[in-house]
Amino acid sequence: MNGHWLHSPEWKWTNNSTVDKQFVHQWVVPLEEMSSYPDVVLYGAPISRSSISVSGASQYPDEFRRMWKKFATYQIEKNIDLTKLNVADAGDVQMHTTDILLSHERIEAATFHLVKKYARSVTSLIGGDHSVTACAIRGIKKQYPEEKIGILQLDTHLDVRDPSELGPANGTPIRQLIDGNVVEGRHIINIGLHGFFNAKSLVDYAREKEIKLVPLNEARNQGLVHTIKRSLEYLAQEVDRIYVTVDMDVLDISVAPGVPASTPGGMNSQELFDILFEIGTRQEVNHIDFVCLDPTKDSIVAETVKIGVYAWLQYLSGVAVRK
Amino acid sequence: MNGHWLHSPEWKWTNNSTVDKQFVHQWVVPLEEMSSYPDVVLYGAPISRSSISVSGASQYPDEFRRMWKKFATYQIEKNIDLTKLNVADAGDVQMHTTDILLSHERIEAATFHLVKKYARSVTSLIGGDHSVTACAIRGIKKQYPEEKIGILQLDTHLDVRDPSELGPANGTPIRQLIDGNVVEGRHIINIGLHGFFNAKSLVDYAREKEIKLVPLNEARNQGLVHTIKRSLEYLAQEVDRIYVTVDMDVLDISVAPGVPASTPGGMNSQELFDILFEIGTRQEVNHIDFVCLDPTKDSIVAETVKIGVYAWLQYLSGVAVRK
Amino acid sequence: MNGHWLHSPEWKWTNNSTVDKQFVHQWVVPLEEMSSYPDVVLYGAPISRSSISVSGASQYPDEFRRMWKKFATYQIEKNIDLTKLNVADAGDVQMHTTDILLSHERIEAATFHLVKKYARSVTSLIGGDHSVTACAIRGIKKQYPEEKIGILQLDTHLDVRDPSELGPANGTPIRQLIDGNVVEGRHIINIGLHGFFNAKSLVDYAREKEIKLVPLNEARNQGLVHTIKRSLEYLAQEVDRIYVTVDMDVLDISVAPGVPASTPGGMNSQELFDILFEIGTRQEVNHIDFVCLDPTKDSIVAETVKIGVYAWLQYLSGVAVRK
Amino acid sequence: MNGHWLHSPEWKWTNNSTVDKQFVHQWVVPLEEMSSYPDVVLYGAPISRSSISVSGASQYPDEFRRMWKKFATYQIEKNIDLTKLNVADAGDVQMHTTDILLSHERIEAATFHLVKKYARSVTSLIGGDHSVTACAIRGIKKQYPEEKIGILQLDTHLDVRDPSELGPANGTPIRQLIDGNVVEGRHIINIGLHGFFNAKSLVDYAREKEIKLVPLNEARNQGLVHTIKRSLEYLAQEVDRIYVTVDMDVLDISVAPGVPASTPGGMNSQELFDILFEIGTRQEVNHIDFVCLDPTKDSIVAETVKIGVYAWLQYLSGVAVRK
Amino acid sequence: MNGHWLHSPEWKWTNNSTVDKQFVHQWVVPLEEMSSYPDVVLYGAPISRSSISVSGASQYPDEFRRMWKKFATYQIEKNIDLTKLNVADAGDVQMHTTDILLSHERIEAATFHLVKKYARSVTSLIGGDHSVTACAIRGIKKQYPEEKIGILQLDTHLDVRDPSELGPANGTPIRQLIDGNVVEGRHIINIGLHGFFNAKSLVDYAREKEIKLVPLNEARNQGLVHTIKRSLEYLAQEVDRIYVTVDMDVLDISVAPGVPASTPGGMNSQELFDILFEIGTRQEVNHIDFVCLDPTKDSIVAETVKIGVYAWLQYLSGVAVRK
Amino acid sequence: MNGHWLHSPEWKWTNNSTVDKQFVHQWVVPLEEMSSYPDVVLYGAPISRSSISVSGASQYPDEFRRMWKKFATYQIEKNIDLTKLNVADAGDVQMHTTDILLSHERIEAATFHLVKKYARSVTSLIGGDHSVTACAIRGIKKQYPEEKIGILQLDTHLDVRDPSELGPANGTPIRQLIDGNVVEGRHIINIGLHGFFNAKSLVDYAREKEIKLVPLNEARNQGLVHTIKRSLEYLAQEVDRIYVTVDMDVLDISVAPGVPASTPGGMNSQELFDILFEIGTRQEVNHIDFVCLDPTKDSIVAETVKIGVYAWLQYLSGVAVRK
Repeated sequence: MNGHWLHSPEWKWTNNSTVDKQFVHQWVVPLEEMSSYPDVVLYGAPISRSSISVSGASQYPDEFRRMWKKFATYQIEKNIDLTKLNVADAGDVQMHTTDILLSHERIEAATFHLVKKYARSVTSLIGGDHSVTACAIRGIKKQYPEEKIGILQLDTHLDVRDPSELGPANGTPIRQLIDGNVVEGRHIINIGLHGFFNAKSLVDYAREKEIKLVPLNEARNQGLVHTIKRSLEYLAQEVDRIYVTVDMDVLDISVAPGVPASTPGGMNSQELFDILFEIGTRQEVNHIDFVCLDPTKDSIVAETVKIGVYAWLQYLSGVAVRK
Repeated sequence: MNGHWLHSPEWKWTNNSTVDKQFVHQWVVPLEEMSSYPDVVLYGAPISRSSISVSGASQYPDEFRRMWKKFATYQIEKNIDLTKLNVADAGDVQMHTTDILLSHERIEAATFHLVKKYARSVTSLIGGDHSVTACAIRGIKKQYPEEKIGILQLDTHLDVRDPSELGPANGTPIRQLIDGNVVEGRHIINIGLHGFFNAKSLVDYAREKEIKLVPLNEARNQGLVHTIKRSLEYLAQEVDRIYVTVDMDVLDISVAPGVPASTPGGMNSQELFDILFEIGTRQEVNHIDFVCLDPTKDSIVAETVKIGVYAWLQYLSGVAVRK
Repeated sequence: MNGHWLHSPEWKWTNNSTVDKQFVHQWVVPLEEMSSYPDVVLYGAPISRSSISVSGASQYPDEFRRMWKKFATYQIEKNIDLTKLNVADAGDVQMHTTDILLSHERIEAATFHLVKKYARSVTSLIGGDHSVTACAIRGIKKQYPEEKIGILQLDTHLDVRDPSELGPANGTPIRQLIDGNVVEGRHIINIGLHGFFNAKSLVDYAREKEIKLVPLNEARNQGLVHTIKRSLEYLAQEVDRIYVTVDMDVLDISVAPGVPASTPGGMNSQELFDILFEIGTRQEVNHIDFVCLDPTKDSIVAETVKIGVYAWLQYLSGVAVRK
Repeated sequence: MNGHWLHSPEWKWTNNSTVDKQFVHQWVVPLEEMSSYPDVVLYGAPISRSSISVSGASQYPDEFRRMWKKFATYQIEKNIDLTKLNVADAGDVQMHTTDILLSHERIEAATFHLVKKYARSVTSLIGGDHSVTACAIRGIKKQYPEEKIGILQLDTHLDVRDPSELGPANGTPIRQLIDGNVVEGRHIINIGLHGFFNAKSLVDYAREKEIKLVPLNEARNQGLVHTIKRSLEYLAQEVDRIYVTVDMDVLDISVAPGVPASTPGGMNSQELFDILFEIGTRQEVNHIDFVCLDPTKDSIVAETVKIGVYAWLQYLSGVAVRK
Repeated sequence: MNGHWLHSPEWKWTNNSTVDKQFVHQWVVPLEEMSSYPDVVLYGAPISRSSISVSGASQYPDEFRRMWKKFATYQIEKNIDLTKLNVADAGDVQMHTTDILLSHERIEAATFHLVKKYARSVTSLIGGDHSVTACAIRGIKKQYPEEKIGILQLDTHLDVRDPSELGPANGTPIRQLIDGNVVEGRHIINIGLHGFFNAKSLVDYAREKEIKLVPLNEARNQGLVHTIKRSLEYLAQEVDRIYVTVDMDVLDISVAPGVPASTPGGMNSQELFDILFEIGTRQEVNHIDFVCLDPTKDSIVAETVKIGVYAWLQYLSGVAVRK
Repeated sequence: MNGHWLHSPEWKWTNNSTVDKQFVHQWVVPLEEMSSYPDVVLYGAPISRSSISVSGASQYPDEFRRMWKKFATYQIEKNIDLTKLNVADAGDVQMHTTDILLSHERIEAATFHLVKKYARSVTSLIGGDHSVTACAIRGIKKQYPEEKIGILQLDTHLDVRDPSELGPANGTPIRQLIDGNVVEGRHIINIGLHGFFNAKSLVDYAREKEIKLVPLNEARNQGLVHTIKRSLEYLAQEVDRIYVTVDMDVLDISVAPGVPASTPGGMNSQELFDILFEIGTRQEVNHIDFVCLDPTKDSIVAETVKIGVYAWLQYLSGVAVRK
């Protein structure tokens, strides 16, 4: 009976469900509901209490998904229909309120299980602060202990501060991995460094460990997309598996108010989008994360979260081209 | 199989579902899922393009519901457990993008059907701008054409501007109802008027139509709750059915940034909460609406939306006492 | 011919002119266009570079007038129709870009001429920062050198800092007047002091000069309106002419974001409105100013400017009652 | 006598009038006061209740004019003195508060009369949301029913949503014109598309109707100004009359906070300025509009409104070169 | 030689040092520089990563001290010269970046040493989030294991969530102390509860443990200062030592934007100031803390931080009266 | 004894002092504490009441220094270790509260003494508004009366308004210097002009005085760094001493919200950084200032102040290369 007047021709109740996949929220499927093998598995790690300075990056996975409804599944420049990809959302790893180490272990364990179970899928991790990268890579290493892992890091900072001083904070993931013998320094390429945002002692550490440093102006001079291509080719020769980590503070502060650690002199959003499409197309990239975007600091029009979703979709557009 | 590793003891995926009703979002039930007879039926009318000045009040029903998770179902001063009330959410009436008259007709039709089908329930309408009040009351009148309807209006304005000039805009609902012979002016009591916010010609109209005007200072002098009590007693004697409309601009501008039409010299939130509890307790009040709250103008801590939810729960606390 | 199609029945061009006086901007008349004797003469002194801390109070006269169109000329609580008052706007005294002393002299000269020419009018000066008060009172003294002038000051601060140190800055007007033998300390009553916002040495100076200090809590305990009444009666006995200066920082910081010097523990807007109505009704008050409201710091809904206009209209409502 | 002291050498009252035309507000003349034939006729259509999402673009015509006083009439790069152009301001078409269709009809009628009466003038329409474009073009078509009209659309979106579903909302103007046989799809060129902001079904419609789609990256690769030149040459060959519509959401979200529909990956302001100068120089462009700029969302320094005025002046600088 | 021209009569370099104590920053002395016995010892615990929701309360100790220069050392209503009190600032306990338990242990250890060394001093702890209260009281208990400690808690919440679930987060301090047998429930009085902000299960726990709950409306009805007086008298009879904890979320959201957990219906700032003066005067109160004020969320005029400093000074004014 | 427990192994008090120079605040030395000869002398002129429009640029020297702790002393692109430079901070010239001329004289006197005493040092002046430039250059001229001084001005405006009308306001410094025969017009190069921000009469003045005008688009076409190089070479041939003045309003409004006079169409931050490095490397540049940055208008992440510090460090990086 209820149904009768609800469908009265006189008026309708708002119904947001849609049957097609024209927008991102209609297209991504919860992992547990996916029937086919996922091309991409997405998962979130909503932690930012491991951040050196106050951060609300823990709220990014939620805001990231809420923004989906404003994005179509069709990329107009390259004429790419994303709906040919199967994208599954595994949800967020549950964080503990005060036990940071436990939260980190859960991210590692969850990553381990995902890469084990979905070996042919590309994984996308949505942070959270940059500490999650160390956890995720350790989880991958656990599944593939014999493989060499390479890292392409888009970042304004080196993130090689000393965990013996700070614990596993967001300034330390790269050093955790090097000092923990998970990844070799020479298999890490950092693109995006500029200006006065890395203390000399940290640069010295990076050089000693043979991290490849490509300052932003140098990458621009050679072409950003070209630099990415060559970096991935180099890594592909040296390692078995490539992990890309995008610290959103690589963006210029004028385009990314929602990344408090962003600085003047960073990338603009178009540069990042071009890079990510290129990365997406490379068969050798199996894992990507996006970290340090703090929606609580974003502008009222949420421009940084919009860049975050756009960036992820550009990467997926590249993946779609592979297929 | 999927389920197996999802419930691994090593980590958990975030799960927001909860089995109890300690918070409002766990307690309110979609109308179509409710098994028992609802004590209260909630519905939204997300329209504000009928507003004279630019308004985002159309986004209030959504934000109102999103805020529920920050409110417990227990009122501590009066020791009231709201969960003894059955509250059903009928969803939002679907608005047309550009046809304001059609949208208004749908609100009227939806109200008609709700009051017909749930005659013993209290209805709560969440606007939207103040134009929705005229629609809702016409819908009630359609179901009860023989009944006299009285209105208790909490408002800084009279809302008796001329629809022949503006159309059915948010400045006109009371005049629509009087001129349309739906409600008599002498069955309308306005509490909250103050200062310099009503042109003299409108006050003259109101006096001519015998609307009872109780300026805020006068109500305060006699006690706000006492004034409400006496107003409802008066109406109860004169009419068959009482509709309460709360234009949130009755609040002082310093507490309600998210109501652009709010002014200095208005009510504070505690005064409104006390009034609404009293209103809730009165058996003779069958319908209430809350209008003109524009979440797009609210402060970043969403203080006005929080007042809006608190106000509604105070009313429900009063209703719970009835029961 | 042009006129022909402009008045086509098919459409109209927006026309903001109105023939009646239902709103404040339709009612106040430029001084040079006024045919009858003005009851009230309004003038502005848009200066704030004399402010100790950065202030945009120089923009208040403009914003004050722009806000008029949101205020009706009818006060509903007291049933007062303001249109029976003739209110003339003399415009703003022209300030020099860098010569503060010259600007101050112009305010003094303009005030002298206004009080000379319109001896029977009430003057309302809209600042600017508090330095304008000293100028205005010197202008009045020049016209009435034999009269004793009393000051009722609504203020969180004493404003008796030393002009020999700061020059004629906004922290010094009361001291300028006392040390310059324009006004005696014992003819000054300060209402609104509270908390920790006046250095002890300044309080010592005030006491030595016999300024009457009525802290806000004391005034509240005795009734604010009652305190005002008694203060004006005292001054009326002691002096020939009363000047009221309203430093808007007397308001609590939570209601007046647009007054950067406002503090916690100040008046709420209703208290100020009640006081100003009372002041308006007193025959012995001939001059009033409103200072230190900085619209550049106001909230996006301009709540402080709205309080400013409301406050001025409350004062005029009192004046209307005199008449 | 009044005049005497008003012009006292001792002080002056502020006088904002200026005799020369060094700033824009001194130069543009109300249409009814213009004695010579206008080169450019400006008019506003302050409507945004036809916008799909909440928009305050209705306030843009007012804010646009208020900003004029911050702009000089001299363009320094090209050494252009704008004062040689006669620019007339016809004011705003009066919008109805709730009757959207009536408002749209008035825009159409007003445009018809303007293009009829000032056939040799260039028209500039200031919106309002994008729905006004359909009205304006229909008004032109009414005057020139035999002419083919071409559209150059600078936009992030196609604006070909279905009016049978939404009514004449701001997402539909291009489709209104095509389906209404006012303009042919192949006579429309859209420049500015990028990313994930147009559902595939809409792109399919556009392709089916032969709208020329030039994604932003493609236009950049070929040179934006060059692309514009070629686009206008193409249209000049195909049609009799060219209308340029600038949806300000073509701008990147980081430069245009006051255009809520703007996105990452859009044009920067310099690109838009260069384009508009080029457009202005082309004899074949007779009509232009600027839509969807919402000043209520702008930053506190009003950067988007400043871009809006700059953009219009760049266009006029081009027009000045024609002359 | 350098000195010569630095002191040229022609100009001076800015020198912020002052020899007197007219403002708070001139009066408070670093603990290590204090020669006399301190009446009050202040220390900070800048931690908020133990907060359930994102919080920047870790920045409050710094902002609290920076604001001192805007406050005089003279309280005008009560005519109290604070400079007769010796107030020492011990600085901040150093927090670890990621090890929350270690940070908590340090707060406990620092408190233990302060109360041991300065047994006759009153301690003031500036948080940080509410988790610091449990640490501080454990530190006191360690020094006085035989004493019974009572707590007067000004708070909108009970803060008795379960640490076995959340760890020692900011929602748990009271329960930590009860379940840890540090303080008995019946020796805790909570004043400030109101509305819908405590789940029923937590209220049930509090009642079972015999925490005294005084909802805000009840306290207001009996007089807030009177209620405080009676509460402290009760505690003074029952316990040996009273600790007052002020969760700044007890304030109404309209006055305290910088306390994200604040709610509508809370205390206004004047009420809090009156209470704190009363508390300060009571000989039996030895310890106080102020927690959960997040300066990163404050308004641009820093109104909440100003309330925070004012509140602390009101307390000290009471302490000064004792002396 | 105090020391004992302060250094307990159980906890530590926060200690911000650092012994190395990895960050800027650890590296810059107060002038009076510097033992070696300074390569660079920094001083501030915190005045903005000489600004035509309201400005808080007086607060920039303080905010500039507070931001230092977020910047490392190592520039990564050029591999420059700034610590090899001796940078001394002379503090701020003390400004008078209301006597603008006196403040200006002090800036002149202080500059005179600094350039006299530290003839081999590079000076960096941090404004304040642009009026300070005229003072500083007069101070230099006083020390070197026989030398010709050239000015490289990075600015959106000419700043040649008439001081006989405005006094020595921030729109006048260049004209003050030309009309005062301190600098010849032909020894001034302005780079950065664009759009509609200079009245034609001012451009006429500039051309008459032979100021070299290089609009931004022209400089971009020829290469910004190249244009700078050629400009400095030209000046080096013509004059004895080069002063560079950077009006931060040369930046585009989208990157510099904290410069209210900034406009659309300005430089981006990377362009400014590249220019300043080049300028720093030129032996012939002895003096630089940075003016008109108003931190009170900056975004909450302080992006403009960050650009300001970055810009200054880029200049110093160039100076370091000289050495």
